[in-house]
Amino acid sequence: MNSRKEVSEAVIRRLPKYLRCLGELKSKKVLRISSKELSERMSLTASQIRQDLSCFGEFGQQGYGYNIEYLNESISKILGTYNGFKVIVIGAGNMGTAITKSDRIKNRGFNVVGIFDNNKDLIGTTIGNIKIQHIDKVKEFIKSNKIDIAALTIPKEQTEKIAEKMVTYGIKGLWNFSAIELKLPEHIAIENVHLSDSIMVLGYKINNE
Amino acid sequence: MNSRKEVSEAVIRRLPKYLRCLGELKSKKVLRISSKELSERMSLTASQIRQDLSCFGEFGQQGYGYNIEYLNESISKILGTYNGFKVIVIGAGNMGTAITKSDRIKNRGFNVVGIFDNNKDLIGTTIGNIKIQHIDKVKEFIKSNKIDIAALTIPKEQTEKIAEKMVTYGIKGLWNFSAIELKLPEHIAIENVHLSDSIMVLGYKINNE
Repeated sequence: MNSRKEVSEAVIRRLPKYLRCLGELKSKKVLRISSKELSERMSLTASQIRQDLSCFGEFGQQGYGYNIEYLNESISKILGTYNGFKVIVIGAGNMGTAITKSDRIKNRGFNVVGIFDNNKDLIGTTIGNIKIQHIDKVKEFIKSNKIDIAALTIPKEQTEKIAEKMVTYGIKGLWNFSAIELKLPEHIAIENVHLSDSIMVLGYKINNE
Repeated sequence: MNSRKEVSEAVIRRLPKYLRCLGELKSKKVLRISSKELSERMSLTASQIRQDLSCFGEFGQQGYGYNIEYLNESISKILGTYNGFKVIVIGAGNMGTAITKSDRIKNRGFNVVGIFDNNKDLIGTTIGNIKIQHIDKVKEFIKSNKIDIAALTIPKEQTEKIAEKMVTYGIKGLWNFSAIELKLPEHIAIENVHLSDSIMVLGYKINNE
């Protein structure tokens, strides 16, 4: 496992894209693919693909290419999508609802099992088949259900404080949708989705393309 | 404008983060900041910050640091957040609703002015104060309202076809929330938000941290 730590962020970020590409090929009943064809589909060079995958083992075979089922399975394992991560959502607004209802996220092994909010009007109502609970119940819930991930879809003013609490309650990873950078202990995994950053980059591209 | 084209993607992606950092300082009535302090807040080195900003002009002054108001204004201009981009949302689901209602996106100059769906039950209902229209009306709407950006929050099976239509209708940029890679003419700006990719990266980090 030590070698894994040296895999660059860029390679890790490409893995889900490989998975999407392979999933598409699988759904078309394709059994194998040459590195050239895979590279065209991925908009990468064949050598970059070989380099990416070599971080994790040997996957291709000279003259045969890649076995799609095997490569798909292997990357799924590397990403841990078979683990069945347990996720809670903090904030039952539109973004929290979108996450909770997302089949795409569920199909990748991330199961939303609890939703929490501090708005009394929402407590007891459901999203999908999950009842919204008061945020006061979250500590107990995390401990007794061994929750891995908390998705934070709350106003940015509240995010830092809630994030720190999540850490003390034993959460392993935070999926942060608030427009702030979290500063937390190094062993806590953080992944940010800054939507307003993303649309600003789009605006820049429009002005400069 | 030619020099802008050579600015790396990484630098462009950091600009919104500068803006968030400067906005926070502004709200605390801070007037200026040394490159050292700014670098600590940004988790970058001071030399990286100088390099980033030098892509766009001269902002810091030896012994004075950065004028926060001026730097904030300048980066806002570079990103085009004063332009008032006109945005339509295709798909009136939870993600479409979240985007439409987002103050954060609006405050950056991206105004959602239309929402479209093909679900007849939704047509005529409103999100915020915007009436959901049938997708058949989108061509006329884009042309008569000079829409810049279409946010695509629709099932991935429909995304490619809709994206191609958007391009022929004159859209300049696509904000793609579907789990596919769009292949479109080069002059069309694309920005992807792949939520399931993001949570898979988080899962990887949890397993390997």
